[in-house]
Parts: sequence; C-alpha cells; structure tokens
Amino acid sequence: MTQTPQFQTGADVRRAARQGELTGQTSGLAAGFVQANLAILPRDLAEEFQQFCRLNSQACPLLDVTQPGSAAPETIAPTADLRTDLPRYRVWRDGELIDEPTDITDYWREDLVSFLIGCSFTFEAALLNAGIPVRHIEQGVNVPMYRTNIDCVPNGSFHGPLVVSMRPLKPADAIAAVQITSKYPTVHGAPIHLGLPDKIGITDILQPDYGDAVEVRDDELPVFWACGVTPQSVIMAAKPPLAITHSPGCMFLTDIRDVDLATA
Amino acid sequence: MTQTPQFQTGADVRRAARQGELTGQTSGLAAGFVQANLAILPRDLAEEFQQFCRLNSQACPLLDVTQPGSAAPETIAPTADLRTDLPRYRVWRDGELIDEPTDITDYWREDLVSFLIGCSFTFEAALLNAGIPVRHIEQGVNVPMYRTNIDCVPNGSFHGPLVVSMRPLKPADAIAAVQITSKYPTVHGAPIHLGLPDKIGITDILQPDYGDAVEVRDDELPVFWACGVTPQSVIMAAKPPLAITHSPGCMFLTDIRDVDLATA
Repeated sequence: MTQTPQFQTGADVRRAARQGELTGQTSGLAAGFVQANLAILPRDLAEEFQQFCRLNSQACPLLDVTQPGSAAPETIAPTADLRTDLPRYRVWRDGELIDEPTDITDYWREDLVSFLIGCSFTFEAALLNAGIPVRHIEQGVNVPMYRTNIDCVPNGSFHGPLVVSMRPLKPADAIAAVQITSKYPTVHGAPIHLGLPDKIGITDILQPDYGDAVEVRDDELPVFWACGVTPQSVIMAAKPPLAITHSPGCMFLTDIRDVDLATA
Repeated sequence: MTQTPQFQTGADVRRAARQGELTGQTSGLAAGFVQANLAILPRDLAEEFQQFCRLNSQACPLLDVTQPGSAAPETIAPTADLRTDLPRYRVWRDGELIDEPTDITDYWREDLVSFLIGCSFTFEAALLNAGIPVRHIEQGVNVPMYRTNIDCVPNGSFHGPLVVSMRPLKPADAIAAVQITSKYPTVHGAPIHLGLPDKIGITDILQPDYGDAVEVRDDELPVFWACGVTPQSVIMAAKPPLAITHSPGCMFLTDIRDVDLATA
C-alpha cells in the first residue's frame, strides 16, 4: 500500500495510466479515492445489462453509466477518458479473451456503453480505518472469492450465480463490519452471509473459485459479501460479440472520495 | 401477545397496576410503548451504580434516573409513580430476596434513587416488524440468558460478568438483526457476539443460566445481545442494604414509543 507522491488523486493515477507509466494494479493508489470496476458492452445489450445490475444491486452497484460512444463517466470523473485511463484492459469476443491492451482506442466504437461498478476497496479502507484487520491485505494476496448456490435475478441474456468475496473476522469484528459496510450500499453494502459456508454452496473454504485462499482461524467466522466478479462472470457467460473490462486489479480511479459514498 | 382494549398506552398499564388489576407480566401489553427494567438503590450507592451503567452502557442503557426520593421518572413518564405503577416488585436486603409486593409504598424512603434501564422488548418488536422470527416468542418461553466470561467494567461495589440473551437466526437474518438493533442503542443496541458461543464462555447453548432453552437449528447461528439481567445480577452481588427491582417480566411501562428510541 505504498504510495508515490504523484498518485495523490484519482486524476493522478488516470494520467499515469494514459501516459503508459502505470500498467499494473491500482490497489492502495490515491488512497481515499473511489476505485471502480469497468464493463463495456455494445448498445444493443446495454439496456438489458443495466436492468440486470438494478435487479442485483448488491453484486452490481452502478456508480455511473455513460452515453453510447462517450468515454467520459459524467458523474464520477467527467474529465476522464475510459479508453486510455485504466492501466490495463481485457477485450473479449464471444466470451473469449482476445487481448489485454493498455489502451482500447483501437477497439472503440460509437455504440459502446460503459458501466462503472462499485468495488470493495472502498469498504475495505473503511474497515481498516475502524481497526478491523483484513486478512488478504495482511497476507498481501487477492481476496478469496466463491461461486455460490444463490442465483442472481436473471434478465435476458444475463444470468448466473452470485459470486461472493470472503473475509474472516472475529465475531465482534464481524458485527462491526456489518455496521460499517451497511453504510456503503454502492460498494456492495452489508455482507450477504456469515458463518455456515455450506449453506450457500461453499464446500471448502480453502478452495476459492477466484483469488487466493486465506486462513480462517478457530475464533473467526467467514463473512461473505456480494462481489464485483459477479457481473464479469455473468457477461462472459452471455458471450456478447464484444465486451471490454478492466484487467483484474487494474481498476478505474474516480474523482469521488470513499467518504462521499457513505450514507448517514 | 393479545391486548385488551384498556391497555392501549403505557399509562393504561400503569393505571391497572396501580389499581391492583394487573399483577403479572407485561410482555406484549400496550404494544409500541417502551418497557423498562427498574432498579432502586439508596442514594449513597446511586452515584457509583450510575457510573457503572455509563461504563457498561450496552448492558445497562439508562433511559431515566430519578432525583432522590422522587418516584416520577421525569423524562420517560413524568406522571407515573414508581412505587405503585409496576405490577410486581422484588425487595432485597443485603442481596437476599425478602418480599415480592405489588406496591412498595411501605418500603419507600426519601433517599431512594430509581434507575430505568432499557429492555430488549423494544428491539424484538422491531425484529418482528422486519419479518425476522424470534424463537422464544414463537415458542412462548422466556429468552435464554447466559453468564459470559466477559467482565463488565467494574466500578466500586459493582462488578461481575456480562449476561447475554440469545436468539438463534439464519445468517441473512442475523445480518439484518445487526442492522436493525444497531439503531436502538438505548435498548442494548447491536449484538455483542454471534456464532462460536465457547469463545465467550458458553459451553452448552442448551443450558442457559437464566430463562429457557430454545432450539438452534443447523442453518442458524446463535446471536448474543447484552442483557438487562446484567445490572440486576451485579446489584445482587454487591449486597446493598436495600434494593428494589421489578419482578421478572413485570416491567415499567413508559410514555415513550419504541420508534422514539430509533436513531436515524
């Protein structure tokens, strides 16, 4: 979580990405600024996907949606250019990964709609600020994520299981984490489950479907939050002719601050 | 939880108690009005006890404290008379129960200070209103309560273990219950623990220290709240020359409403 002086704001990180100076992950950069998941789809699928997000807002909290062809998210970073301002992208055709460029200008089309989706980095910062330890950050690994037996509310081409992230917490910390993350509905909000992983279809907590395994100690409960991997996995399963997402960990830095997303 | 027409308000219940028409428990009477635990101590112990309550506010949330010799709780029921308006009392000398009268006029002294302490009836009503089932209410028994291995913050003569009440909940309901009860800090607030009962010194969940055992199903977690029995057990252990409490379940009905205690 070291931070070089040039990354004081979200705009600083975007500028470095645009200039090709930053091509890796963004965790901990421009601390206090909201980071977002990116998903780009052709206009003819966009409305269906937007409705899917509305129906599954805990997994797919929409921070901003662009006009077709516009690369500027007007609400959260009006001066940004989504074609250049992320460190690295993934380009998918018919559900197959075809490229991982640092710039998507060559793939841009006037019918593309960009979705900016809340990310758990915001609530993790709030947990750390409250003195609640976050195991995968302590261990320097990716958060463990699991496909559950809970189906998202389907909409047209978009359907699939809810994916959750897991953080092991002592019971009193789990209670405080519910209180804290409830204040951040646009970055997944409160946990959806805790304890009893088998009740949501997780048979082995040490075998996550995505990310890295972390230890759950005998005085801890696994606490599960709806995860931003859900919309990505749902998009891949729908096999759209073209989709563009951020590369894992290489998020979009916004101009809004974590504190702006906290409800009263 | 049936309600006769004469018990529409807290004042109705107090009048019936005063007139000797109500001598039993108050659960479900004048629904929507806050019920309170009562503890009365001589003035020379009152300050020490009040500070104990402040230091342990989750277990001992003070709704009101009277002036010495006054039997009217000015904040929560200014027209009430605490000597006559509860259905039944318990009188203790040196920690020994000596009487269970329906009126304490004969025991009254000008140096007595009354403490009105929040009660979980208020948050249970909020849980039920949110569609969260409360097992001991479903089963028509008293809530199970346990002495924990967590010590209250001691103050002078007053010290002892935190007593907790337990309600078994499905994980998603437990998360919602944290959110709901967090809004009621003056009636014990959020749970203090969930899952893993042995970590707070509870070796057999089916053997409560007070109240009745209830089933914890395999898709449920035991959820623990600080309990109003804590101040009672602490007072008894301090063996004051005189103490008067409500008789179990025979609470004081206030003029304030459950909704008035909810924070934003």
